[in-house]
Amino acid sequence: MTDLPDTNLVMLTLVKPEGELEVFFERRPMPTPKPHEVLVKVHATPINPSDLGLLFGGADMSTARASTRDGLPVITADVPPPGMRAMSGRIGEALPIGNEGSGVVVAAGDSPEAQALLGKTVAMLGGEIYAEYRCLPVGMCLPLPDGTDPADGASCFVNPLTSQAFVETMRMEGHSAIVHTAAASNLGQMLVKICAADGVPLVNIVRSEAQVKLLKDLGAEHIVNSSDDDFQDKLIAAIVETGATLGFDAIGGGKLAGQMLAAMEVAAVKRMATYSRYGSDTFKQVYIYGALDLGPTILNRSFGLTWSLSGFLLTPFLQKAGAEVVGRLRQRVVDELTTTFKSHYSHDISLTEALDLEVAHAYNAKRTGEKYLIRPNG
Amino acid sequence: MTDLPDTNLVMLTLVKPEGELEVFFERRPMPTPKPHEVLVKVHATPINPSDLGLLFGGADMSTARASTRDGLPVITADVPPPGMRAMSGRIGEALPIGNEGSGVVVAAGDSPEAQALLGKTVAMLGGEIYAEYRCLPVGMCLPLPDGTDPADGASCFVNPLTSQAFVETMRMEGHSAIVHTAAASNLGQMLVKICAADGVPLVNIVRSEAQVKLLKDLGAEHIVNSSDDDFQDKLIAAIVETGATLGFDAIGGGKLAGQMLAAMEVAAVKRMATYSRYGSDTFKQVYIYGALDLGPTILNRSFGLTWSLSGFLLTPFLQKAGAEVVGRLRQRVVDELTTTFKSHYSHDISLTEALDLEVAHAYNAKRTGEKYLIRPNG
Repeated sequence: MTDLPDTNLVMLTLVKPEGELEVFFERRPMPTPKPHEVLVKVHATPINPSDLGLLFGGADMSTARASTRDGLPVITADVPPPGMRAMSGRIGEALPIGNEGSGVVVAAGDSPEAQALLGKTVAMLGGEIYAEYRCLPVGMCLPLPDGTDPADGASCFVNPLTSQAFVETMRMEGHSAIVHTAAASNLGQMLVKICAADGVPLVNIVRSEAQVKLLKDLGAEHIVNSSDDDFQDKLIAAIVETGATLGFDAIGGGKLAGQMLAAMEVAAVKRMATYSRYGSDTFKQVYIYGALDLGPTILNRSFGLTWSLSGFLLTPFLQKAGAEVVGRLRQRVVDELTTTFKSHYSHDISLTEALDLEVAHAYNAKRTGEKYLIRPNG
Repeated sequence: MTDLPDTNLVMLTLVKPEGELEVFFERRPMPTPKPHEVLVKVHATPINPSDLGLLFGGADMSTARASTRDGLPVITADVPPPGMRAMSGRIGEALPIGNEGSGVVVAAGDSPEAQALLGKTVAMLGGEIYAEYRCLPVGMCLPLPDGTDPADGASCFVNPLTSQAFVETMRMEGHSAIVHTAAASNLGQMLVKICAADGVPLVNIVRSEAQVKLLKDLGAEHIVNSSDDDFQDKLIAAIVETGATLGFDAIGGGKLAGQMLAAMEVAAVKRMATYSRYGSDTFKQVYIYGALDLGPTILNRSFGLTWSLSGFLLTPFLQKAGAEVVGRLRQRVVDELTTTFKSHYSHDISLTEALDLEVAHAYNAKRTGEKYLIRPNG
């Protein structure tokens, strides 16, 4: 314990009542683990879209400006009224950030469970991980095999559990195939591998030829490119072939969620013997789980009345699924960490670089194929 | 039986492969009831929005033109390509129309159940009711008390069962209050009375001061006018007061369904102790059950990720609810036919007048407060 610094650098995001967002660093006293806690030196933590939602929230990032405080970078941006309304619950409260990450346990509380982790590499879930150190309960850590590369352990939860949750949801809700958008993402690549291993037909929607190639190389069978002129026809053909009646949409805005429902309906109508003015009686479900496009969702309702469009969030799913299922999903992550659940990062940055304005604009653009990994301890 | 004519005038709607819709009459041989069937002389049948969906479907009614065939009116209109795609399952098939109605049983099959209805006034469900006579199974008839006005019996199913289905859905899915749009409609007025009788808080969304007054006179407690500048604030206030997390939307197009979800979310966030970047964990459900606005549904997703927007259709609901519930709902319709479930009609028309082009344009406009009743036998 003698080699620990006195303070811990933590990133915070604050919405001010006057309509301004400020993201900055604070040096806080180094925490001391309680009996059931461990102190983890953070080695790697990804910037997920879900982190960006908290980090910059409803701010207008075109107004973002850089400054410094105590020699550390600060980003400030204006928040338009709709953003202020959406974030009304967090005004005046400086919130820590960082959903997940990996590191090494450098101090542990007195309990045997905590002591058992001392010196181990662990994956962490639970916010406040954009920091040099994170003190958290043992239950929020997932011990990783000795020698695990911190980069491989950084994204153990959000994408690996979400991609598995899609397949679990399919089984729980009685569907037999899945349509997925932004399918070339890290999460999408995991889903391709899970579905291949589990024999689940998967329709991958991407938006460029480069992404088509990437997924083909991974062995994906059904890939449709939304940039193609005949996209809707190809989507229908793939859905007819797979029988998918369940979709997961990372994009949220625009027409895509509605196009998925419409294609499922056309496929369902093809299977009907008689015409119904209300469309097919095949239940079609699309879940929106991301917001790569923050614009409005536009539904051209040409898909009858037997459909549902819903939000999807990992934590409530895990609570509903129960401890046994969650245990099984977590074990699969550990077992297949460097294969199925391998993440790819395009950029490694330091903690303070994460608040360099140019870098922030780059990762906030959420370009497919670009993924940033923060390494708070070099 | 000797006083029955040889033929029965039936209205039909046909989509032709060349992209044209034709609505016309056909003289068909008078049907003879099978053992479990009755022949009903149709006295009154309403034009519901759900009938219009089949009648004119995806046709462009601005192109509609009138003609005659065998001295009877015909309406013809062009169908643009999206309409042809949506109606691909019915091309080339002349379909009868008319979801519900009332009349007197003038002939009956040999079974005791059918014979028991001879001479009785009945309500009917089951299409093909825009006709002078309708032959149908006993099970599709609801016997009405002697002396029931045919106009009172004409709309026994669609609106009375749908309005009751909303309250049943609320109970089945664990909500405790309801938001309803187009609340001044016949269905909306029934819902006001049901909710008052059952002690269910109801937020009524209307779009004019005249409709506010109409519902106030009915005793409705929470009425918000979507034409008011402070509509969203008033909607939020009503939802805070009632705790509604369930909405039924007859309009479908535009921003209203999303505004309902957003208002429910604001109300839910007010009840939260701590901020969550993903919004509240209160589940919010809006069902779209109509399409008064055929335009796209536009969702500005400012309501977290714990929500669902779904289609709602009466028949699948009744199948899911089961025979006991359906029996209870039907009995309530009979018991409260001239009170809770009283329908109001602004126009009485004959069967052939229903295909007068000017009349058709008028009822196809679906103006709130205007409701057409067809009287095929004067």
